[in-house]
Amino acid sequence: MGPQSASALRKTNQIFEEEVVIRGNFNALESVYTENARILPPGAAMIEGRPAIKEFWQGAAASLNVTSIQLETVDVEFLGDTAVEIGRAMINTQSGSMAVKYVVVWKQEDGAWKWHIDIWNPS
Amino acid sequence: MGPQSASALRKTNQIFEEEVVIRGNFNALESVYTENARILPPGAAMIEGRPAIKEFWQGAAASLNVTSIQLETVDVEFLGDTAVEIGRAMINTQSGSMAVKYVVVWKQEDGAWKWHIDIWNPS
Repeated sequence: MGPQSASALRKTNQIFEEEVVIRGNFNALESVYTENARILPPGAAMIEGRPAIKEFWQGAAASLNVTSIQLETVDVEFLGDTAVEIGRAMINTQSGSMAVKYVVVWKQEDGAWKWHIDIWNPS
Repeated sequence: MGPQSASALRKTNQIFEEEVVIRGNFNALESVYTENARILPPGAAMIEGRPAIKEFWQGAAASLNVTSIQLETVDVEFLGDTAVEIGRAMINTQSGSMAVKYVVVWKQEDGAWKWHIDIWNPS
């Protein structure tokens, strides 16, 4: 089991912010989401599994012209190999910014903390 | 610690559906949410603590003319005195129905399972 600290989560969030969103490397989502992760995006059905989640983010980043996303942990509780995070995010696009809040249930997979359940909505 | 089964959660969800939403008894939210619960409603800031949550639901039920809400557990994982539920809800109002999906982090409080973190968005 890896370190139980907010900094372990920060590392994963940074991969999402920098590698996925800024560099557009959607394969890096393998280091962000667990294999069986589920996301619950606003205005859409739940999406299950990493391949479908990759497709979702690729489509969303393109259609919204996302330029960057900043994630900020508001609160986190560790429960063994699970963690529950409440956070807020700023999604910056070519046409403006959207404030979002989220809950992520984290799991350890291959020694790294990853997003296992991910739900968000506009603030 | 109470029973770790979906039926223990069902009991609490039923209080919300019947006592709170149908009968309009918002004090019954004390049996639904933990004292320090947080809700993350779409289009609003996070709301913390039972008194503020009561106010939120009272206002939402009135302004949307909610007639009933059905909650359905899609998946639940128990982690000691915490549980993580993914679910879907149908919110019925006098002007139509809205499908919603949610994640609730449950905690045991006073021997009962209650909603501790509650976030949802439209499907």
